Amino acid sequence: MTTFPADRNIIITGFMGTGKTTIGRLLAERLGRLFVDMDEAIEAHFGKPISQVFADEGEPAFRVVEAQLCQRMAAEKGIVVSTGGGALVNPASRQALAESGVLLCLTASVDEILARLESMTDRPLLPGDVDEKRARIRALLHARRQAYAAISHQIDTTARTPEQIVERILHSLDAEMEAPGMTLLPVSSPSGSYDICIGGGLLRQIGSLLRDRGLRPGPVAVVTHDAIAENHYAAVEASLTAAGYEPALCPIPDGEQHKRLDVISTLYDRFLAAGLDRRSAVIALGGGVAGDMAGFAAATYLRGVPFVQAPTSLLAMVDASVGGKTGVDLPQGKNLVGAFKQPQLVVIDPDTLATLPADEFRSGLAEVIKHGIIGAPDLFAELEEYGPTSMAHLIANAVRVKIAVVEEDPFEQGRRAVLNLGHTFGHAIEQVSGYSIRHGEGVALGMVAAAKLSLLLGRCDPALVERIRAVIERHDLPVHVAGYSVDQIIAAMATDKKRSAQTLRFVIPQAIGDVVVIDDPGSAIVRQAVQSIVKK
Amino acid sequence: MTTFPADRNIIITGFMGTGKTTIGRLLAERLGRLFVDMDEAIEAHFGKPISQVFADEGEPAFRVVEAQLCQRMAAEKGIVVSTGGGALVNPASRQALAESGVLLCLTASVDEILARLESMTDRPLLPGDVDEKRARIRALLHARRQAYAAISHQIDTTARTPEQIVERILHSLDAEMEAPGMTLLPVSSPSGSYDICIGGGLLRQIGSLLRDRGLRPGPVAVVTHDAIAENHYAAVEASLTAAGYEPALCPIPDGEQHKRLDVISTLYDRFLAAGLDRRSAVIALGGGVAGDMAGFAAATYLRGVPFVQAPTSLLAMVDASVGGKTGVDLPQGKNLVGAFKQPQLVVIDPDTLATLPADEFRSGLAEVIKHGIIGAPDLFAELEEYGPTSMAHLIANAVRVKIAVVEEDPFEQGRRAVLNLGHTFGHAIEQVSGYSIRHGEGVALGMVAAAKLSLLLGRCDPALVERIRAVIERHDLPVHVAGYSVDQIIAAMATDKKRSAQTLRFVIPQAIGDVVVIDDPGSAIVRQAVQSIVKK
Repeated sequence: MTTFPADRNIIITGFMGTGKTTIGRLLAERLGRLFVDMDEAIEAHFGKPISQVFADEGEPAFRVVEAQLCQRMAAEKGIVVSTGGGALVNPASRQALAESGVLLCLTASVDEILARLESMTDRPLLPGDVDEKRARIRALLHARRQAYAAISHQIDTTARTPEQIVERILHSLDAEMEAPGMTLLPVSSPSGSYDICIGGGLLRQIGSLLRDRGLRPGPVAVVTHDAIAENHYAAVEASLTAAGYEPALCPIPDGEQHKRLDVISTLYDRFLAAGLDRRSAVIALGGGVAGDMAGFAAATYLRGVPFVQAPTSLLAMVDASVGGKTGVDLPQGKNLVGAFKQPQLVVIDPDTLATLPADEFRSGLAEVIKHGIIGAPDLFAELEEYGPTSMAHLIANAVRVKIAVVEEDPFEQGRRAVLNLGHTFGHAIEQVSGYSIRHGEGVALGMVAAAKLSLLLGRCDPALVERIRAVIERHDLPVHVAGYSVDQIIAAMATDKKRSAQTLRFVIPQAIGDVVVIDDPGSAIVRQAVQSIVKK
Repeated sequence: MTTFPADRNIIITGFMGTGKTTIGRLLAERLGRLFVDMDEAIEAHFGKPISQVFADEGEPAFRVVEAQLCQRMAAEKGIVVSTGGGALVNPASRQALAESGVLLCLTASVDEILARLESMTDRPLLPGDVDEKRARIRALLHARRQAYAAISHQIDTTARTPEQIVERILHSLDAEMEAPGMTLLPVSSPSGSYDICIGGGLLRQIGSLLRDRGLRPGPVAVVTHDAIAENHYAAVEASLTAAGYEPALCPIPDGEQHKRLDVISTLYDRFLAAGLDRRSAVIALGGGVAGDMAGFAAATYLRGVPFVQAPTSLLAMVDASVGGKTGVDLPQGKNLVGAFKQPQLVVIDPDTLATLPADEFRSGLAEVIKHGIIGAPDLFAELEEYGPTSMAHLIANAVRVKIAVVEEDPFEQGRRAVLNLGHTFGHAIEQVSGYSIRHGEGVALGMVAAAKLSLLLGRCDPALVERIRAVIERHDLPVHVAGYSVDQIIAAMATDKKRSAQTLRFVIPQAIGDVVVIDDPGSAIVRQAVQSIVKK
C-alpha cells in the first residue's frame, strides 16, 4: 500500500477543523498502526476537556504539557499521531517529530474551516460571531504560517472525503520515500493523471523520478536553451545517465521570436538522429518557450511521445507546467498553432530560480498574484502582507489554483477562461510595446485594468482595486504604462486571437478568490478601464 | 426520445437468434407502441408451433401465410413488428413493409447465433450436431444475404445488452429521419463519440449533417485536391452554404510527396484568411492524403478545431475514416509527424467511388479483405464467393471491424497493432519500389507473406494461405512481386518506423477472424516468407 518504512512515525498536523483526528484514525486503520490523538492524551493528562484546561490553567501550561508529549511521541516508532493545531509551532517539537518520521500538514479554506467548526462546541479559541471567528481564524493562520509552510507535505482537505484524503496521504508517503521533503501534487487529466514534484535540488534526481514513473530507459531528448544548459544540463545529464537513460541535448534558440515551425522541424531531426521511438521521452528544460516548443514537438513526433516538464522560470513553474497547452507562433500571431499535450511528469526545482534574472522572477510573480486573486485568498494575503515564505510553498500554492481550474475544464471550453485574468488587456499592451513589455508586466497592468473594469461595472468596491494595485506595486510590477495611447491598446485588443466569436471577453475580480468572465461590457467602459492604467 | 414519426411502422428483421422478439418488445415498450411478433401471429393462425407447421404443412404453406401477414402489417400504422427470419427475403413483403415505415436488420456473429440457439428447442431449421448447425447457419445467411444487405440499418447485437441494442436502434431511427436509407455507425473515442454516416448521395447533404451535430454556422474550410474538387466541390459547397456555412476551398497538391509541413503551413494561412476560429470546422474531402493533412492541420490550428472527414476513396473510407490517425512525412520517412485527431463526423458517400480510378479502387479492396481476415469472416466469405453486394453494405461491414478494434485501443497501445496485418511486409515493398507499388498492393502482398509466415510457424494450415491468396487474386490484386530482391525487402523492413523497441513485429492470421501479433519470429523464417512472394 505504501513503501513508507513501518518503524517511522507519521505525524499529522494542521489547523483546527482540518480533520486531523478523523484522518489520523482512518490512516492508522488502513496501515494497521497504533494511533495517538494528542488532544485526547492531554485531556487524559489534565482529566478535563481542553477548553477547560485553557480556562483553568491558561495556554502556557497547556503548551508545556503539549511539548513534553511531542518529545514522548518522537521516541515512539511506527505510530500515527494527530497533533494539536498549534503543537508544531514549537520548533523543538517540530524538529523532534520530523526526525522520528514524516510530517503532514492538512489544510482547508478559511470558509471550510469555519463551516466545520460551526458544528463543534469544544474549541477554546473561537468566541464571537461569524465575522469575529473568521478574523480570528485568519489571524491564527497567519501566526502559524511559517510553521505550517515549513512542512513539505500539504494535503488540501477542502471538498474531499476522508477516503480521498487518505489516498492523497499515501501518495505523499510514497513521495517522501522518493525524495525526502518533496511536495507532490497529483493532477488528473483526460489522458491519465500525472505528478507535479516540487523540491529544492530535485533536478539532480530527475532520472530516478522518470524511472519511478515507468518511463523506459534508452534515448531521451532534453530540449533547452544554451543559457539554461550552461547552468543545469550537467546535473540533469548525470542524473538521467545514472538512471539508465541516454540523454540527447537538443538546443533551441532562446526567445519568443524562435517559436516557429521551422525550429520545430530541427527538433524532429534531432529526435530521429538520437533514435527516439514512440516510447522515448522528450524533456523540456527551461522557461515557457522551451516548454511550448518541446511540448508541441512531443505532441506531434510519431503522433505523440511521452513529455516531461522541468520548468526553470517562475512563470513556467506556476503557469505553463499545468494545463497541457503547447504552441508555436505564425507570422500572423502568437500560439496560432499548437496542441494540448499533458506531461507524464513535472519536476519543479525552485533552486533554479537562483539563476533567474530578477525581472523574469518579477514577471513570474505576476502570475502568482493572479492565481491568488482567482482562487487562493490565503496566498494573496501572504503576498500582500509578508511576501513569500518558502519558494516551494509559494509555488505549490499557486500551482494548486491552476490544477483546480484545469481539472474542471481540461480543453479550455469554459471555466478555464478565468486563468486569462489580466490577459485581454495584457496581451494588447505586450503587443503595442512590440513585446518590450514582458508577459508578466502586461498581466500585472491587465489585472489593474480588470479590477477597474469590475469597479466600473459595479461588481466590486474601490478597496478591492486598491488591494490589487498595492500588491502588484509591492512586488515591483507596473500599475501604469507610458508611451502608448489608449487607442493603440484598444485596437490591439480587437485583433487578439482570444476573442471568442467576435466578442471581447474579460475576466474581472469581484473579490479575492472570486472572478467571473464577462463578454463585451461595452467599448466606453473598456476605454475607461484602459485609461486608468495609461500615464499621460 | 426519437424524432421518428408516430404513424410510421418500425420493422425488425434479422436472422434467427439475433433477438428480434426480445428487442422488438422492449423497443415497443420504450416508445409506447403496439408490438406484433409475426411468428406468434402465425402460430396463432395455424394453432400450433412453427416447427409443427413446417413438419405438417411444409415451408411453402408457411411462407404464403407469412407473406399475407406482411401485407396486413404494412397496412397498420405506428406499430413495432418483429418478422420471421426469412420473411423479408420475399421482395414484395420487403417493399410493402419498407413503404410503411423503416426496416431494421439485427445481426450477430455466427458463433453468437449458434450459442443463442443452443438454449432454444423450437427452431425448425437446425438439426444435427454443432458443425452441421454452423454449416447450416452459414448457408442460410448466404442465401439471405442479398435481402439482409439491402437494409440500410444493420444493428450488430453481438456482446450487447438489450438496452444497448435499443439505444442503437433509436440512433438509427434518428439517422433515418436525417437521411432516409443512411447507415449510421456510432464510434466511441476518448474525446467523445461521433457518427460515421454512409449512404449514396450523402455529400449533397453534408451541410445539414454538420448542422444536426451542432457544428456552428460560419466559416468552414474544405481541404481537397483539384481533381476531387472538380467532381465534388460544387455539391459540397451548395450543401454547406444552404445550411448556413461559409465554405472556403483550401486546395492542396495531390500525392504523398506533398504531405509536408510546409504545405500544412499554407493551410494555416488559408484558415486564418478565411477567419476560422476555435469552433470552425475543417473538412477533409478526398483520399488518405487529404485526410492526413487536413486532420493534422485541424489538430494543431489554434490547438485543435473540429474536424470532419468526407473520404472519396475506398481506402480512406474503410481505413483512414476511423481511428483518428493523421500525419505528415519528413525526408527521413513517412508519417513521422502527426497527431491523433478524432473527427466530429465522417460522411461516406459511395457514389464518389464512381469517379475513382480502377486501380485505386482495387487498392482499397485490399484493406477491405484485410478487415475481413482480422474480424469479419462473413465479409471475407462474401468477397471470396460472390464479390460485393452493395458498396454501402461492404463499406459498413469493413468499417465495423475497424471500429471494434479502435474502440478497444484508441491510442494504438496494443490490440490495434492487428490492423497492421500485411503492413510490415507491405511497407517495405512499397518502399523498395519507390512507391510505384500502391499501398493496397503492398498490403495484399504483405497479407500473402503474413499467411505464409503463419504457416511456417505452425500457426495455420496450408488451406488458409490458399484462401487468402485466392481472394486477393480474385480481386485483381498482386500475390507476387517481381524486380526486387528478397534482400532489398528485408533491408527495408529493418528501417520501418513501425518497429517497436528494435524488434520487427508481424501480424499473422491463424484463421479468418483470428489474427495475432508476434515479435521477431527469427530472420530465417521471415526470409522464407518474403521469398514466397518474390518472383525470380
